[in-house]
Amino acid sequence: MKLWEKGIPTDKQVDFFTVGNDRELDTVLAKYDVLGSIAQAKMLQKVGLISVNEKTDLLQALNEILIDIEKGDFQIENDFEDVHSKIEFLLTEKVGNAGKKIHTARSRNDQILVDMNLFLKEELNQIKNQIRQLFDLLMELAEKYKNILMPGYTHFQIAMPSSFGLWFSAYAESMIDDIILVNAALKIVDQNPLGSAAGYGSSFPIDRTYTTNELGFKTLKYNSVAAQMSRGKSEKSTAFALCSLAGTLSKLAMDVTLYMSQNFNFVSLPSHLTTGSSIMPHKKNPDVFELIRGKCNKIQALPYELTLITNNLPSGYHRDLQLLKEGLIPAIQTMKACLDMTHYSLKDIKINDNILEDPKYNYLFTVDALNELVSQGIPFRDAYRIIGEQVEKGTFQSPKKTTHTHEGSINNLCLDEIKKKMYESL
Amino acid sequence: MKLWEKGIPTDKQVDFFTVGNDRELDTVLAKYDVLGSIAQAKMLQKVGLISVNEKTDLLQALNEILIDIEKGDFQIENDFEDVHSKIEFLLTEKVGNAGKKIHTARSRNDQILVDMNLFLKEELNQIKNQIRQLFDLLMELAEKYKNILMPGYTHFQIAMPSSFGLWFSAYAESMIDDIILVNAALKIVDQNPLGSAAGYGSSFPIDRTYTTNELGFKTLKYNSVAAQMSRGKSEKSTAFALCSLAGTLSKLAMDVTLYMSQNFNFVSLPSHLTTGSSIMPHKKNPDVFELIRGKCNKIQALPYELTLITNNLPSGYHRDLQLLKEGLIPAIQTMKACLDMTHYSLKDIKINDNILEDPKYNYLFTVDALNELVSQGIPFRDAYRIIGEQVEKGTFQSPKKTTHTHEGSINNLCLDEIKKKMYESL
Amino acid sequence: MKLWEKGIPTDKQVDFFTVGNDRELDTVLAKYDVLGSIAQAKMLQKVGLISVNEKTDLLQALNEILIDIEKGDFQIENDFEDVHSKIEFLLTEKVGNAGKKIHTARSRNDQILVDMNLFLKEELNQIKNQIRQLFDLLMELAEKYKNILMPGYTHFQIAMPSSFGLWFSAYAESMIDDIILVNAALKIVDQNPLGSAAGYGSSFPIDRTYTTNELGFKTLKYNSVAAQMSRGKSEKSTAFALCSLAGTLSKLAMDVTLYMSQNFNFVSLPSHLTTGSSIMPHKKNPDVFELIRGKCNKIQALPYELTLITNNLPSGYHRDLQLLKEGLIPAIQTMKACLDMTHYSLKDIKINDNILEDPKYNYLFTVDALNELVSQGIPFRDAYRIIGEQVEKGTFQSPKKTTHTHEGSINNLCLDEIKKKMYESL
Amino acid sequence: MKLWEKGIPTDKQVDFFTVGNDRELDTVLAKYDVLGSIAQAKMLQKVGLISVNEKTDLLQALNEILIDIEKGDFQIENDFEDVHSKIEFLLTEKVGNAGKKIHTARSRNDQILVDMNLFLKEELNQIKNQIRQLFDLLMELAEKYKNILMPGYTHFQIAMPSSFGLWFSAYAESMIDDIILVNAALKIVDQNPLGSAAGYGSSFPIDRTYTTNELGFKTLKYNSVAAQMSRGKSEKSTAFALCSLAGTLSKLAMDVTLYMSQNFNFVSLPSHLTTGSSIMPHKKNPDVFELIRGKCNKIQALPYELTLITNNLPSGYHRDLQLLKEGLIPAIQTMKACLDMTHYSLKDIKINDNILEDPKYNYLFTVDALNELVSQGIPFRDAYRIIGEQVEKGTFQSPKKTTHTHEGSINNLCLDEIKKKMYESL
Repeated sequence: MKLWEKGIPTDKQVDFFTVGNDRELDTVLAKYDVLGSIAQAKMLQKVGLISVNEKTDLLQALNEILIDIEKGDFQIENDFEDVHSKIEFLLTEKVGNAGKKIHTARSRNDQILVDMNLFLKEELNQIKNQIRQLFDLLMELAEKYKNILMPGYTHFQIAMPSSFGLWFSAYAESMIDDIILVNAALKIVDQNPLGSAAGYGSSFPIDRTYTTNELGFKTLKYNSVAAQMSRGKSEKSTAFALCSLAGTLSKLAMDVTLYMSQNFNFVSLPSHLTTGSSIMPHKKNPDVFELIRGKCNKIQALPYELTLITNNLPSGYHRDLQLLKEGLIPAIQTMKACLDMTHYSLKDIKINDNILEDPKYNYLFTVDALNELVSQGIPFRDAYRIIGEQVEKGTFQSPKKTTHTHEGSINNLCLDEIKKKMYESL
Repeated sequence: MKLWEKGIPTDKQVDFFTVGNDRELDTVLAKYDVLGSIAQAKMLQKVGLISVNEKTDLLQALNEILIDIEKGDFQIENDFEDVHSKIEFLLTEKVGNAGKKIHTARSRNDQILVDMNLFLKEELNQIKNQIRQLFDLLMELAEKYKNILMPGYTHFQIAMPSSFGLWFSAYAESMIDDIILVNAALKIVDQNPLGSAAGYGSSFPIDRTYTTNELGFKTLKYNSVAAQMSRGKSEKSTAFALCSLAGTLSKLAMDVTLYMSQNFNFVSLPSHLTTGSSIMPHKKNPDVFELIRGKCNKIQALPYELTLITNNLPSGYHRDLQLLKEGLIPAIQTMKACLDMTHYSLKDIKINDNILEDPKYNYLFTVDALNELVSQGIPFRDAYRIIGEQVEKGTFQSPKKTTHTHEGSINNLCLDEIKKKMYESL
Repeated sequence: MKLWEKGIPTDKQVDFFTVGNDRELDTVLAKYDVLGSIAQAKMLQKVGLISVNEKTDLLQALNEILIDIEKGDFQIENDFEDVHSKIEFLLTEKVGNAGKKIHTARSRNDQILVDMNLFLKEELNQIKNQIRQLFDLLMELAEKYKNILMPGYTHFQIAMPSSFGLWFSAYAESMIDDIILVNAALKIVDQNPLGSAAGYGSSFPIDRTYTTNELGFKTLKYNSVAAQMSRGKSEKSTAFALCSLAGTLSKLAMDVTLYMSQNFNFVSLPSHLTTGSSIMPHKKNPDVFELIRGKCNKIQALPYELTLITNNLPSGYHRDLQLLKEGLIPAIQTMKACLDMTHYSLKDIKINDNILEDPKYNYLFTVDALNELVSQGIPFRDAYRIIGEQVEKGTFQSPKKTTHTHEGSINNLCLDEIKKKMYESL
Repeated sequence: MKLWEKGIPTDKQVDFFTVGNDRELDTVLAKYDVLGSIAQAKMLQKVGLISVNEKTDLLQALNEILIDIEKGDFQIENDFEDVHSKIEFLLTEKVGNAGKKIHTARSRNDQILVDMNLFLKEELNQIKNQIRQLFDLLMELAEKYKNILMPGYTHFQIAMPSSFGLWFSAYAESMIDDIILVNAALKIVDQNPLGSAAGYGSSFPIDRTYTTNELGFKTLKYNSVAAQMSRGKSEKSTAFALCSLAGTLSKLAMDVTLYMSQNFNFVSLPSHLTTGSSIMPHKKNPDVFELIRGKCNKIQALPYELTLITNNLPSGYHRDLQLLKEGLIPAIQTMKACLDMTHYSLKDIKINDNILEDPKYNYLFTVDALNELVSQGIPFRDAYRIIGEQVEKGTFQSPKKTTHTHEGSINNLCLDEIKKKMYESL
């Protein structure tokens, strides 16, 4: 059943091409579509477009559908084009004419806008929660391993002393920036588009402030054309936030896979978190982190896909917009799986505590030695030449310990300050 | 002069390849490099690493350089690798040994981090200001033309009545979402990385809280490794904001070029804002808006360029990061030019006030007519069939006016509410 | 069952995360995996690594599996990690020890390389065939409508006379460039990687020239490390070709959706190829072409996704590469659907044959008039001014017909030359 | 001076915005613009649109301009909008009215198409030549170091023996795939667009076959609309080829930077090819390879920029297309610099010849040992378990040499076959 069907049988091939995998994706949105309809029904009664009885019938029917959705009993059969058609069909079946009236002053265009904003709000909040959990774990690990030194690299060259405390809490603090972008996306999707109809508003005397409150949106996307234009913009804003977060996790995963290499041997994972090779019996591969890296890298292509779909389309709805869901919904699911798996794997990571015993790391401390000279009053550039000559002649003696004191250094990690900054950003 | 030169003549070809157009780009950053050095000098004296006299000398010399920069008298000659080397050279020339000491507890890595964050803060604030100006103009135009109707399209098909009030203020309200992303980028760059040295902190007892206050940063990027990792992240966050804003302007420009086509003829521009053809004497081309569109589309590739440069690099500095500036700095300049040019051109746009007289727009009002039937008590789906049949038979009579009342509709634009939302976001 | 399992129970969560939707994607590759194993079995016997009887058993078992695949009876259950494990399991079940021996001198790394190259060869050849069919249709339409004029636009402004003959055959000729890239991709995938094992070759005396001939590859990817590095490169080369083709179809679809707008009204589609609106009864929307446009635009993000997954990974296999399939396989299927649907829809397109009667198109002929003056000996720039003045004063008289003679112009479409160029490129 | 100026003073701000850095970029194209004009002048005389004398005058003037260009004496002052205007001005200055006539039957649209195709042909051929030089060097290095073993990695884990012969020639053979894409791009740009005028052909009886031969194009882009649509397509095809090549060089550079790390220590570079640190005196950084990597990664964003500029624009010229040059021309220059620098640096690379003495590389040979068991008749999966147990118990004995014989393996590099494949592709 298509809502717009007028007697001409639709071509099956066309149907297959145009509907795509919408039914599957729409299942994720069903809950939000019902919530939007509940608000719509209440509002229609409030402004007198339906009767109290009609409202009561609609709300009961909608709640039944919601229960089915929550039980996993809701599905969109091939007879239905999308979630909106299926729910309207169910409503009409349950309550007759009133079911038809729910569509008053509403278009599928604004239904999907509402569904998507509600969906994104919930998903972004879940992601924030997962980030916080990962943040807490990283901070715990930083505290636990704060005294274990590791080499710090620049240009892949051994450079200066670092520590596992510094390394773990670096990723924790970095995620605060990701949270800032998640918050921006949340603010952008927290605006009610319901009532924009097909993108130009409606001649019915609807009350959009009322539905805004009912649906828990912070404000209205007032202008109907702006509400329609938010299609793509909500998705891209979310994608930017995912992209930033994915970049952080991908870099962390790259570090882990590298540090697990026998050439670094800084960390290891228990057997149940590694996989083997079909041909090399000694291999213990960090597949989990390679896939976190790969999946997070793939996610970073999402904004480009969304941009290509929407770009250079003039204002007003175009069917192309339907395709935004295809990339976004799986990307959100992948992002959540990557956050989970990072947490799940990092909590069992093992740290090698005698890394710096290898003589190749002696030069890590040249700068500390140089700074010691400077503290004794030798100008920096002169001290630089003295240590440089010791290194050239092989006479450099490594202190092998650090006495860094400033904010954010090895011996003063500022974990409390970082926690405070994160929690204020949540 | 290279800071790290140790007697081996550097290969000229290598020099050319590695320095690239850094000297030109670094000129933009010179001011911020000096500001960073002023804060550094004060802090070094505060913690006892230089004397009061040294500080006084350094500050005087730095202020002289700053004046030269502001007068446009500063340049980075081919003898110098970058802005940092040039300024250190000038300092040493002016104040001797104290000039060398400014580099204590500091690396070029954290200098460029500071320069870039200060630069991005200023640029993003300028962009916010330009957005506000464009917003104000769009709102003025919406008020001025609020009674002039135009067709609203979906699927490029004539759909429902819209208005110039709705159209202009739609872009105004859309820019609030862009502001949210600009604010997120601003928050991300408003953290002090100074003191992270080469990415692992320093053994000197520096005071990073002091430089944070001196430089006007809202907070510290505490963790030294996190500070280093913010390279790329600051740039990408800014790029996301530019990308969002560019998407808005590009769509507006697409609308304008389309509406200037003889096939729409909704708007026109005065002659000084159009260009001609070398071969077709009657042409008045909207080149300005085509270039706003094209330039804004090009900007939208920026995040991908920045991602490709930084992606899959493990933590720690890599020379690749130097290339981030190449795309970002011109993109910011282009973005500002596009904002200016959009404002400059839109203020003179002419609106055709009798568009709907063309009979092809009669069907715009089918939904309004349908809603009228619904208001009389006919169920929506039945009303839908009645009007559908009138359209099929050619008997449909267009009302040609709208009586929309809800928030964000043609006759209730909610301009004050939109203004309030924007001003609260600034 | 995992090939590398060594007694430690694999974590279920890890399993779910690492396998992803590989089983589903691998089903597409099953046929090619069997073909690779047939060549491998023959070669192993030829070089004496298995007996004639073992080979005979293996070939019979592999052919049985192939028949099941072709009947649609093959599936990869959750017990199996991938297609390779499942087929090895079936072989061992059918023929015992010989089934285990098929894996001699082979790694899943080179199996997937072989599978993918064979798969891409077949798919790219199918796409070539579809391009040819669409080319033939466009050329037919160009011939059929060669005398019907339409306006040609530059800057969205009415510019010069064009024709449907010119328009249809322009897209036909453009696709020759796409074919050139498809051919390049075909050449790149037509190299045998089998025998590279885990990316560094094998100590077994295998015969890679033999398997190259058996599998119908044009040449070997000789170097084992190069064979491994072709992972990602084969996929990207294919993606470039898809991207180019998708760009052509997307532009064609944009033209059609625009030309179907009431503001152009150049073409229309029969009812079974349009869809309606849930709220506007008069709408006949070009959803099919909007979705061709949108899907083709989405495809154009594919190379970026593949690049992000592979970029900055050093040589040698990384698990990330498994994710290349996820975007590529659906993109190929979508590309084929878009080619089909474009052909299916264009064959029924209706052309409006009196477009130029509308007076707004009079100025189309200014250049022809100007050229007429030049032919009479007036210098171009002077003629340009004369016609310009006529246009300004409203005295310009339109000739309303064209007498273009040069190659590729309205009255000399060179359809035969274009066909020849296409057929020589196939 | 603007060609289309009709007395209305153009707004300076508009001028600045619309011309951009076109004058600078156009200087690169000047030579090709003159070559196009020479062919045009000859053709115009041949078909009788100008006299023999006019042609003679034009050719002499054009040759003078060409000499100035080759001497570096040609520049486009701010009075001129682009290269076409400047050259027409010079011609008119030199030969009067005939100078104006050169523009007969030609538009700047097809001039830039011709210029770009000629430019890209020359640049792509230069790049092919550079690839060949780098290929030859890599093959020389493979021959020279063919007996030096190195570890082969999978998942960043030590996996199986490899060699510098295998490693160097892997990149050589990989570049054959890049050449295939360069050839495809060359074929696509080797089509003459001249005569398409503003995109819809001309009413003048021009001879496009004649200019095709004069300009050395292999064939015509016949259809005028197709010729116009090739704008963007030529650029994207070139970008795909650059992207593929850049991916190869980037991976090579990543390998080198990693192998120069003290944690690998496989290769080193002479001092003049490394740079130091401003703070760590012992550092010898592989900046050259880091910048090859970074620049090549940046190049890989180019196709997306070009796609964003052109995508969803309907057929016909749009001013946006002017922006294609901005990214493409510098990317070509960077690509050539990266090829040069890779060649320049690799020729002096030093190879560590006792890498495998480190005991951590013992397990490299497990697969060879396993295969030895299989050769003795033990089924693969059983042999796999035997070696696996030796590894677990620490009793595994490494053979430390390889006896690989198959095509493309350590002891049978097939360098001659790879050379043959490359030379046949040039």
